[in-house]
Amino acid sequence: MEKRGLLYEGKAKKLFVTDDPSLLWVEYKDEATAFNGEKKDNMTGKGRLNNEISSILFDSLHAGGIATHFVQRLSETEQLVKKTDIIPLEVVVRNIVAGSLKKRTGMSEGEELAPAIVEFYYKDDDLGDPLINEDHIRALQAATAEQVKELKKQALEINETLKSYFLENDLLLVDFKLEFGVTQEGIVLLADEISPDTCRLWDKDTKEKFDKDLYRFGIGSLQDGYSEILKRLGGAKHG
Amino acid sequence: MEKRGLLYEGKAKKLFVTDDPSLLWVEYKDEATAFNGEKKDNMTGKGRLNNEISSILFDSLHAGGIATHFVQRLSETEQLVKKTDIIPLEVVVRNIVAGSLKKRTGMSEGEELAPAIVEFYYKDDDLGDPLINEDHIRALQAATAEQVKELKKQALEINETLKSYFLENDLLLVDFKLEFGVTQEGIVLLADEISPDTCRLWDKDTKEKFDKDLYRFGIGSLQDGYSEILKRLGGAKHG
Repeated sequence: MEKRGLLYEGKAKKLFVTDDPSLLWVEYKDEATAFNGEKKDNMTGKGRLNNEISSILFDSLHAGGIATHFVQRLSETEQLVKKTDIIPLEVVVRNIVAGSLKKRTGMSEGEELAPAIVEFYYKDDDLGDPLINEDHIRALQAATAEQVKELKKQALEINETLKSYFLENDLLLVDFKLEFGVTQEGIVLLADEISPDTCRLWDKDTKEKFDKDLYRFGIGSLQDGYSEILKRLGGAKHG
Repeated sequence: MEKRGLLYEGKAKKLFVTDDPSLLWVEYKDEATAFNGEKKDNMTGKGRLNNEISSILFDSLHAGGIATHFVQRLSETEQLVKKTDIIPLEVVVRNIVAGSLKKRTGMSEGEELAPAIVEFYYKDDDLGDPLINEDHIRALQAATAEQVKELKKQALEINETLKSYFLENDLLLVDFKLEFGVTQEGIVLLADEISPDTCRLWDKDTKEKFDKDLYRFGIGSLQDGYSEILKRLGGAKHG
């Protein structure tokens, strides 16, 4: 496998093409951003932590029978993934009230949601990634009705697997954001990353926060939080 | 029928109880408000115009076989309606892109939506009546899943009837906001009002605006716009 030219640089990752047109080379960056890029800082070690955590979580999903775009971890900061066309939706699953849900609905932080809430946000930085409903998705042609059903189904399955996996490691999965892509064969696959950048993770008992809220609200060390998550998940096992 | 004490005073209407516990006496006010009450003015004649227009529209829905809370027009500014428990949702139906949909999604004003878009907003002034989805409605216990289905069904039926009725009178029904209530018997009924305060109405050909956007954005006389709508709908026919 050979890394070729840069395809895309996002806030947290760089994507490179490879000599295999069906595969992309991902490099996790040390940059932390929040509030749609308004807050931005370099955080040494963040790229490694997110790559390690994300690799572990993709492996745990595969073990649970859920297909994703993840192929393998390549180095401390790099992964190999299947190339997909990204669906321009952020799919958010919520088990516990926090963040924008609290702000939007006035519900109390920490309130348990059973069943989980699924939300769709339209991926558009200029619009601030707005919450939209399924009628908006249809009008925007962001995804087909079939794909929306599939996104919800997969998101809830992923939630069950990850929630259990985190709980075994004394972590509460409060909420998380997923992105999906479509392969050349038309298969909808979990893409992007799963990391403390995209999940809210609290200590099971103390409710201490270990995720990007540490950085977002300046309430603690991002690296310490992410390191604690990696430690609880058993560290980087992939050699 | 005897008017008794004031039950509730909102931005645009006063509700009074009557000697019949199943009926309420509605008085339309001359006050115009916009942007969640941030803009507020007295507009002489607005109460009469909205009461006349709303009465005509409720009658046209009844003629189309759609039940509503409306019983009868009582005077230039008053109506008699069935008492319901209001479901805390604003149900918005959109046929053409305008207003917050344009802002939220970046779609162009005037773009036709077929099929129509249905949106739910949580009625809460402190929260600014936020857009929510069906999972939020469930978590907030704002309505049951059955009621949500019924709201959508009725909203789309009402849209078909009103769209045709306005078009016969050279008006485009761009979008509108509905509120529903539940009777003591558990029946979901269209409640509140249907007026240029709650509908965007444009001239069929010139796309001239005749609705509350005239006041909202200070682009014309509210009374002139509402009068034009009443004239096109045949004026106050109810004596």
